[in-house]
Amino acid sequence: MELIHVIERKKLGYALNREEIDCFAQAAANPLALDYQLSAMLMAIRLNGMNKQETADLTLAMAHTGDMLNPKVGGPAVDKHSTGGVGDTTTLILVPLVAACGGKVIKMSGRGLGHTGGTIDKLESIPGLRTELPEDEVLDIVRRIGCCVSAQSGELAPADKRLYSLRDVTSTVDSIPLIASSVMSKKLAMGAQGIVLDIKVGDGALMKTLDEAIELAATMVDIGRKAGRQVTALVTGMEEPLGSHVGNALEMKDAIDVLAGRTKGPLLDLSLLLGAHMLILSNLCRTVEEGKQQLISALTSGAGLHKLHEMVEAQGGDAAFVDHVFLLPRASFILPVYAEKDGCLHSVDALNVGMIAQGLGAGRKTKQDVIDPAVGLVLHKRIGDKVRQGEALGEIHANNKKMGEEAVKALQAALHIDKAPCEKAKLLYAAVTRDGTEIL
Amino acid sequence: MELIHVIERKKLGYALNREEIDCFAQAAANPLALDYQLSAMLMAIRLNGMNKQETADLTLAMAHTGDMLNPKVGGPAVDKHSTGGVGDTTTLILVPLVAACGGKVIKMSGRGLGHTGGTIDKLESIPGLRTELPEDEVLDIVRRIGCCVSAQSGELAPADKRLYSLRDVTSTVDSIPLIASSVMSKKLAMGAQGIVLDIKVGDGALMKTLDEAIELAATMVDIGRKAGRQVTALVTGMEEPLGSHVGNALEMKDAIDVLAGRTKGPLLDLSLLLGAHMLILSNLCRTVEEGKQQLISALTSGAGLHKLHEMVEAQGGDAAFVDHVFLLPRASFILPVYAEKDGCLHSVDALNVGMIAQGLGAGRKTKQDVIDPAVGLVLHKRIGDKVRQGEALGEIHANNKKMGEEAVKALQAALHIDKAPCEKAKLLYAAVTRDGTEIL
Repeated sequence: MELIHVIERKKLGYALNREEIDCFAQAAANPLALDYQLSAMLMAIRLNGMNKQETADLTLAMAHTGDMLNPKVGGPAVDKHSTGGVGDTTTLILVPLVAACGGKVIKMSGRGLGHTGGTIDKLESIPGLRTELPEDEVLDIVRRIGCCVSAQSGELAPADKRLYSLRDVTSTVDSIPLIASSVMSKKLAMGAQGIVLDIKVGDGALMKTLDEAIELAATMVDIGRKAGRQVTALVTGMEEPLGSHVGNALEMKDAIDVLAGRTKGPLLDLSLLLGAHMLILSNLCRTVEEGKQQLISALTSGAGLHKLHEMVEAQGGDAAFVDHVFLLPRASFILPVYAEKDGCLHSVDALNVGMIAQGLGAGRKTKQDVIDPAVGLVLHKRIGDKVRQGEALGEIHANNKKMGEEAVKALQAALHIDKAPCEKAKLLYAAVTRDGTEIL
Repeated sequence: MELIHVIERKKLGYALNREEIDCFAQAAANPLALDYQLSAMLMAIRLNGMNKQETADLTLAMAHTGDMLNPKVGGPAVDKHSTGGVGDTTTLILVPLVAACGGKVIKMSGRGLGHTGGTIDKLESIPGLRTELPEDEVLDIVRRIGCCVSAQSGELAPADKRLYSLRDVTSTVDSIPLIASSVMSKKLAMGAQGIVLDIKVGDGALMKTLDEAIELAATMVDIGRKAGRQVTALVTGMEEPLGSHVGNALEMKDAIDVLAGRTKGPLLDLSLLLGAHMLILSNLCRTVEEGKQQLISALTSGAGLHKLHEMVEAQGGDAAFVDHVFLLPRASFILPVYAEKDGCLHSVDALNVGMIAQGLGAGRKTKQDVIDPAVGLVLHKRIGDKVRQGEALGEIHANNKKMGEEAVKALQAALHIDKAPCEKAKLLYAAVTRDGTEIL
């Protein structure tokens, strides 16, 4: 079968059969296949869609273009994925907490290309810590201490690697079948038995409406069912940054502060919720409430923070940084951002907040960019909070004073204060499991 | 403006403005632009369409990526284009006839990639005849004798050249805005004041239905109006090969036989009709009937054949071949094809007839293939004709006996005889001018 035939069928709006899907996935993994044919196919999928069966077939076909791991780690391996949010460092909180409760967490992350670095970049603000680990070392660490966070191996789902880079430059990112198959092909290849997904919804997220976000969630849960994996997807809001810290070392600090019990709020709440679902998929509890209680116990006993300490050590990092957050890289200029009037914080332009952090050097614009771990920003207020003129709304952490001063102005513009009263932002919108969709 | 922005807009279904269209056309003409972005854009256009204004803007923008000719030839330059049919050699008949009536015909043709060669390949079955002519020589010949048929210059509409080759391999050929802009961008660049189009409709043609064919015709007439050119489009049937001869030297012979008054039938009828519209656009007559009468006079007086003689001579060819068709290349094996039963010829699989000729060596499968001018086939019967068992339906002209024998069987299978009575195939379906569409 030739790819041109498959493009023709999708162009005409037909549902593709497994043989046609395999042809496309194998072409994507074949260096000799032609980019211009793959990109025509991506646009045909973006515009004519794929049904659930096609999407699941594509996901499995892409997963099988590379290694398929089957990790033996003394229990069901669980994984977590977020479609990406500003100030979202739940991974660094829930991975050690779930492991402290007996879960086996194999977390492979990509390096971030966006507002801030990915989880890998945040972890690497700890000196010595290695994330480029061979698979057998990852499994060994998980067997010993219950968790490991490593950079994604290039041998997993090579078809996805090719398509992912083409989608970005052909305006075909915003396609539910393409997003679902991209995320899930890697997760299936990694061999996780249980997968918990955090799907962000809102203006700044890839999914703009609740309906779209639920469709994506249901598609990914369905792929899991067809592939024999347990998948739970939560749809959560992104009206404002999840944690108060945005930046790499800053988010590492935020995560440690949460694990140490020094910081509460939505970042902790969402970490507990996602973590509880991971414990359910690990067969370590039956209900979300039970799971949360276990995680809270691990947090208050210090077992979670200790687990992060163990993990950092196992990955070659200096664990003193976990115990003493003041050791983490700090920016030279810390510039306060003051409220210009009295009122209530009505909205935060979360995407712009991310861009401000990126502009300071916290995120990559191209793959070649080097991240500055120290820079970023901290917010002191959340949506719904009252503020007074002259009160500090947050602070910019910059290594260049002029850039910092510009960031102060930009952050001021991204925080909308109005006299009318307002409410807290909604965090949790829906939960999708194999039993169905629950609107929350 | 960046191409990715334009792709995004078309993907979302917006009508593109002139600046966005220019960005796309210029990218297509820029060797540094990325094929995979162009092909994603082509698929977005194929699936989300373009309105008439976008299509006209794209056509003009593509034309302006290369040379824009403004031929001074002592009268309005007229041109003719067919979307491609089997055994269609109207060009070689109407070009000299129209010139013999005082028209100025600049015909630039592509080399065929399909069942049989293009007009250029047919002409080149005359020894010495040159078709790769510099523009000033073309204009000089037209000024002197009224017509010239040459190979298309690479400097015209380079954006189209790039997109045309990408469409073939990305399954984006069947798009009315892309077909219309491709044909018309070259015609506008060539500088013809009047353009007559022959749009084939039917199972074997690119346009499968009359509605589609009329939409394409109207789109091209509209482009002409917006670009200040006179365009008339006829929608004609392709239920069977237009002339009785299929192959390069065979079609050259068929054209000469028509000009010499030895052959009548649909090939002559359509040549007269298209030619009459060319005379109207040349301001040499007012009605189709008047034009036809002028052309018939030129045919019966021998002026048309003499004009072909002059043109062949002007292009360096041996004009003796025009006077003595038996000099043209002939195949070694001429194998008759007999009717296997009594009945009426109900239908002809015209596309398969073309493929049979191609299989014998009359057409190119890839650009590198060398055409055999001698091979092809001749049909003795037309749809609606009565046939008797054992009567010759046609003949195969082959230079390889085994291939010839296979072609005999294939041609037998492509001609459908049934006892029920049947009618002649319809030739003319509709005429579209700037005054509107007339269904015929």
